[in-house]
Amino acid sequence: MMFRLPEAMVQTHLLHPHRLFPTEPGVRALAIELYEQVRDHPIISPHGHTDPAWFALNEPFPDPAQLLVVPDHYLFRMLYGQGVDLARLGIPRIDGGPVETDPRAIWRLFAAHWTCFRGTPSSIWINHVLQEVFGVQQVLSAETADAIYDQIADQLAKPAFRPRALLDRFKIRLLATTESPLDELTHHDRLMAEGYGDRIITTYRPDVVTDPDQPNFLTNLIQFSEITGCDAFDWDEYLEAHRQRRQDFIRRGATATDHGHPSAQTADLDRPTCERLWRKACSGQLEAHEAELLRGQLLLEMLNMSVDDGLVMQIHPGASRNHNPWLMARHGRDKGADIPMATDYVDALRPLLERHGNNPNLTVILFTLDETTYARELAPLAGHYPALRLGPAWWFHDSPQGMIRYREHITETAGFYNTCGFNDDTRAFLSIPARHDVARRIDARMLAQWVAEHRLSLSDAADLMQELTTGLVWKAYRFRGDPALQ
Amino acid sequence: MMFRLPEAMVQTHLLHPHRLFPTEPGVRALAIELYEQVRDHPIISPHGHTDPAWFALNEPFPDPAQLLVVPDHYLFRMLYGQGVDLARLGIPRIDGGPVETDPRAIWRLFAAHWTCFRGTPSSIWINHVLQEVFGVQQVLSAETADAIYDQIADQLAKPAFRPRALLDRFKIRLLATTESPLDELTHHDRLMAEGYGDRIITTYRPDVVTDPDQPNFLTNLIQFSEITGCDAFDWDEYLEAHRQRRQDFIRRGATATDHGHPSAQTADLDRPTCERLWRKACSGQLEAHEAELLRGQLLLEMLNMSVDDGLVMQIHPGASRNHNPWLMARHGRDKGADIPMATDYVDALRPLLERHGNNPNLTVILFTLDETTYARELAPLAGHYPALRLGPAWWFHDSPQGMIRYREHITETAGFYNTCGFNDDTRAFLSIPARHDVARRIDARMLAQWVAEHRLSLSDAADLMQELTTGLVWKAYRFRGDPALQ
Amino acid sequence: MMFRLPEAMVQTHLLHPHRLFPTEPGVRALAIELYEQVRDHPIISPHGHTDPAWFALNEPFPDPAQLLVVPDHYLFRMLYGQGVDLARLGIPRIDGGPVETDPRAIWRLFAAHWTCFRGTPSSIWINHVLQEVFGVQQVLSAETADAIYDQIADQLAKPAFRPRALLDRFKIRLLATTESPLDELTHHDRLMAEGYGDRIITTYRPDVVTDPDQPNFLTNLIQFSEITGCDAFDWDEYLEAHRQRRQDFIRRGATATDHGHPSAQTADLDRPTCERLWRKACSGQLEAHEAELLRGQLLLEMLNMSVDDGLVMQIHPGASRNHNPWLMARHGRDKGADIPMATDYVDALRPLLERHGNNPNLTVILFTLDETTYARELAPLAGHYPALRLGPAWWFHDSPQGMIRYREHITETAGFYNTCGFNDDTRAFLSIPARHDVARRIDARMLAQWVAEHRLSLSDAADLMQELTTGLVWKAYRFRGDPALQ
Repeated sequence: MMFRLPEAMVQTHLLHPHRLFPTEPGVRALAIELYEQVRDHPIISPHGHTDPAWFALNEPFPDPAQLLVVPDHYLFRMLYGQGVDLARLGIPRIDGGPVETDPRAIWRLFAAHWTCFRGTPSSIWINHVLQEVFGVQQVLSAETADAIYDQIADQLAKPAFRPRALLDRFKIRLLATTESPLDELTHHDRLMAEGYGDRIITTYRPDVVTDPDQPNFLTNLIQFSEITGCDAFDWDEYLEAHRQRRQDFIRRGATATDHGHPSAQTADLDRPTCERLWRKACSGQLEAHEAELLRGQLLLEMLNMSVDDGLVMQIHPGASRNHNPWLMARHGRDKGADIPMATDYVDALRPLLERHGNNPNLTVILFTLDETTYARELAPLAGHYPALRLGPAWWFHDSPQGMIRYREHITETAGFYNTCGFNDDTRAFLSIPARHDVARRIDARMLAQWVAEHRLSLSDAADLMQELTTGLVWKAYRFRGDPALQ
Repeated sequence: MMFRLPEAMVQTHLLHPHRLFPTEPGVRALAIELYEQVRDHPIISPHGHTDPAWFALNEPFPDPAQLLVVPDHYLFRMLYGQGVDLARLGIPRIDGGPVETDPRAIWRLFAAHWTCFRGTPSSIWINHVLQEVFGVQQVLSAETADAIYDQIADQLAKPAFRPRALLDRFKIRLLATTESPLDELTHHDRLMAEGYGDRIITTYRPDVVTDPDQPNFLTNLIQFSEITGCDAFDWDEYLEAHRQRRQDFIRRGATATDHGHPSAQTADLDRPTCERLWRKACSGQLEAHEAELLRGQLLLEMLNMSVDDGLVMQIHPGASRNHNPWLMARHGRDKGADIPMATDYVDALRPLLERHGNNPNLTVILFTLDETTYARELAPLAGHYPALRLGPAWWFHDSPQGMIRYREHITETAGFYNTCGFNDDTRAFLSIPARHDVARRIDARMLAQWVAEHRLSLSDAADLMQELTTGLVWKAYRFRGDPALQ
Repeated sequence: MMFRLPEAMVQTHLLHPHRLFPTEPGVRALAIELYEQVRDHPIISPHGHTDPAWFALNEPFPDPAQLLVVPDHYLFRMLYGQGVDLARLGIPRIDGGPVETDPRAIWRLFAAHWTCFRGTPSSIWINHVLQEVFGVQQVLSAETADAIYDQIADQLAKPAFRPRALLDRFKIRLLATTESPLDELTHHDRLMAEGYGDRIITTYRPDVVTDPDQPNFLTNLIQFSEITGCDAFDWDEYLEAHRQRRQDFIRRGATATDHGHPSAQTADLDRPTCERLWRKACSGQLEAHEAELLRGQLLLEMLNMSVDDGLVMQIHPGASRNHNPWLMARHGRDKGADIPMATDYVDALRPLLERHGNNPNLTVILFTLDETTYARELAPLAGHYPALRLGPAWWFHDSPQGMIRYREHITETAGFYNTCGFNDDTRAFLSIPARHDVARRIDARMLAQWVAEHRLSLSDAADLMQELTTGLVWKAYRFRGDPALQ
């Protein structure tokens, strides 16, 4: 190695303590001080996809591959794009055909391709998990794969690595999971009974019964009818079924709903049109534009219900889901083949905003995969409508540069107070501290930069550092009680 | 406060002298030297919305709230978005219903929400006005609201704070206001008679009689007929009425027209089609696409007239105006509910460019609210067509990050010489020095950065600093005489 | 000059040795060390438009104006946009009308407008050519124009400035030219015969016979029939003609095809539809949407052939070509009037990806002029589909800021290994070293920044520096042999 690097820049561990901070020494010093103020704050995770069974049952996690590789679509999509067959990574096949079952073989294959993650947030997250959770000091590679595998596997067998122990170790104050209206919520019931009711809460995600393009939509409606005792094929009773289930979710701590639609389209149709569309949906005969209209109407219906029950609405639009039909047929949904699309908000949200945009007692949190809308549409909308707030940089943009672009494009028009902190939005439980840490570092970096440019005073930045970490998320999601860990 | 900040970074006033400059000390030193070269240059404001009555009548400004809060849509839109009722801010209601009339109460409400402007250009502008115009040293807050109110109110009563005195103090060499063809221009007549004719000029903004979707369009045409003696309901006479009024405006110093359209659509239709569309417009029967076509044709007609009378054309497209119908019904237009839309230029400008794009004696200045068009469409168009120039970062993008993005996206394809300096585009007279100061600082910052990266020589940067502040705007808008203050 | 610049920042030559590097001294030192590792690496130019006749015939280049100004659309488009008549720059007229023929007059006119290139990549490229190729030390201007002209002209007469000598001096290991299927490839035959077969190769660019909107499309088909002995007006024989010509190109070293389409539309139609469209195309009767469909189908046919012959496919979509009809009529195509358009990939590529996206043995390299697609569409697509790779920042975006945006928007989702190094894509042979040098500097800058932010280890950055310069391009374009110069 021929580089003569300033001493402070040499990286001797997987994670440098000053990673992601600005490079100008004065600004870095500022960023460090801001970061240190929130570094050990409890984690508030208002939106994600962890499995409540982990915490309810508190069983040991499986092997390193099943824990860290097989469920992480960020990882296997990149490997697949580099020519690695998903079956060799142990991703189950729809047809039940053979896939790799040896976790060590999967781990080795992953390790051998580790270089292709250079520069991606996955490299930060995985290195954080390896070093901070498992104490690994070596760089992952084909050569180190086995030793690291063994080190992780050993630890997973210990009580200190069970889900509830990690929940404490990670200082997670609140973790919202996401369930469908068809979920019995038994894990959440157990969590409540065992004293975790104010730490692990659910979120109402009704796409399986609001999106007629979902697979098994009609079967889902039958199940929705059974679970609620309403006839979900009748428009009025269908809406009543939602009202019931929302109450069930609220009883398990839910403060929010979540909606993953192809677009941000909303609609405010008259009752006969709603009933007509619903009848067509229930007979599987909707045209594509009608399905879009119905999804839009149901967003409005959900928000109507929020007027009564106070649930915050999250809208996650703009992904072309399952873009790869061959992969979909072989391995099923959510296998890294979702591609963002250009997304309109100005016209799409008009019906919803006409009805509810001026209501300061409602909260609709908007997300996007189309960064061109940050400065052009979302910041102007959120900076005007009392009911709107902006969710953090999402999915492909949940990354250092993505977060920087988010703040740089949003802040001057929407300020900080129309945003609502960080979401990890992950099913990778072990990466939650890593993800929140990245967000805190980037926020500290941005605030430090603006203080150094005299665009914010230092005391404003210190206040904002607290708000971006804890205050805004707690308020936007209407959580109850104290955000501090007991 | 636990921070140990390098001494030079501690902010002891509302405004730090090095605000907005780069943080690397060598580059900051360069930026300071470039900035100092233009810091005290006269202000040239070629496009804005101040009221000529202020300067013609030279009466004292009203109280702090009416001067600084009630007319500033950047301020009250953000407060509204945070749940503050506009009536409590004294924004008049269409129905004449009650609104707050106590200016001190309005000011207190504004001050109590001041934190929500952290990170926005409004915070820079207002702090600049407070410190530089009124000598305020305290940070605005609920606690300091009354003291600051009194300090401002005291000064507003003094002769040194009358409009003409401020015009001198602000070193404003030229200020263009914007009037409709229905305006009698009496204030401009008085200004000319009293020796301000080369400092305060008008701009021809005909939207009220060129956009059939404007409220009162037909009434406006009647008034247009009366004021010109032409029958504005006849296509030929309507165009003749424009020609007359343009001459009237030119006599009051106008060198430019301005057009605020929903899109950049232009059209070059045959005469029978024009006449047919005009007849439908005059009977209020245009379809939406026909109104769009007519606006596009009228842009072309305006440019045809520019061939004869030399007026520079400014096009400000892309806002979805009055997006909030409830607010529009309650408080009227221009209340912070205008939202940018994705805007096409490549196809939309084709008819205009086919007719006049190759004419180096015409100038069309393009603006945008859709930053995605900077590098993709606007810089390539302006870098090729002799008639095109690019206006500065506009409205939501008139901000430090917005200006940086503008230069970074535009310059490599269009260079500096297809741009035309800064517009404040404001009705907030007291903020004009603040806005020009931000532009000069950001230009100095960008140039310093590029010098330090050896992408520009230092002498080129010094030349450019002058051009961006004075030279390019004076030339693009075809102002006459000497840009220096007498 | 009043600036007191840190000594290291003073620019005493046209080119500063540290140009384009970061300004923070520690990060700059890192960038310098990374850059020095590849500074003298051979140039691999996998896509460009130089004339193979230069190298086959090895005759002296003409005068400075014909060499550097007349063929460079980056230069004359900017001059035209500033009001300079193209005829005065010696750009030939379609009607054979008079244009400037004195090269010194053209050079003087160019030099007199040199300031308008400040801040553009052309200023970097031309300064590099002046200093590094011709030893010029003076800044170009009206005053220095003649002396610089003479200096260049003197050198062009020397044997060391003949094309093959420059090829060696520039350390060009591989240079791909681009030819149409109608080209006889005689220059490439001579190059092969004279030992240049592994350094100068061709590329198959069939637009003249695949795009029915091309001028002379039908004449081209006749010529295509003659050159292949196939009846190109018959669908099957037409495809066979392509297969033959692709083999002819492969024999002259081609490893890739290239396709410049208005959009990225692809199609996968049934055979009767293909035959019907082709018949309409051959009779000049296609509607616009049918022409689009046919181009899309032909992209798929080309990729079908790649399955057999292994040619890499390059897609360059999204330019509105010849946007200026007056200029087109007077001076013809490719005169700086091509304007980028918003470009969709998610839907447009679906048919191609459904058929071939999962094939890891194919390579499709995507380019874009619409930077909004980097993070939103291209990085997610390339990060998932095994057959996709992303070409470098293209055309208007082949510039320092353009390259920075490319890396910042692409890397976090697609990593580095779904990209494929740099393309100069130029017909300006003398600027090739300048362009590759800019790319190496910006890559070093980005990597240095990320090392200093501890987002990459130093050894990872050193590996990547090699990959971005040589490894990825050699692999993606499937070049054979050793990338080192013999």
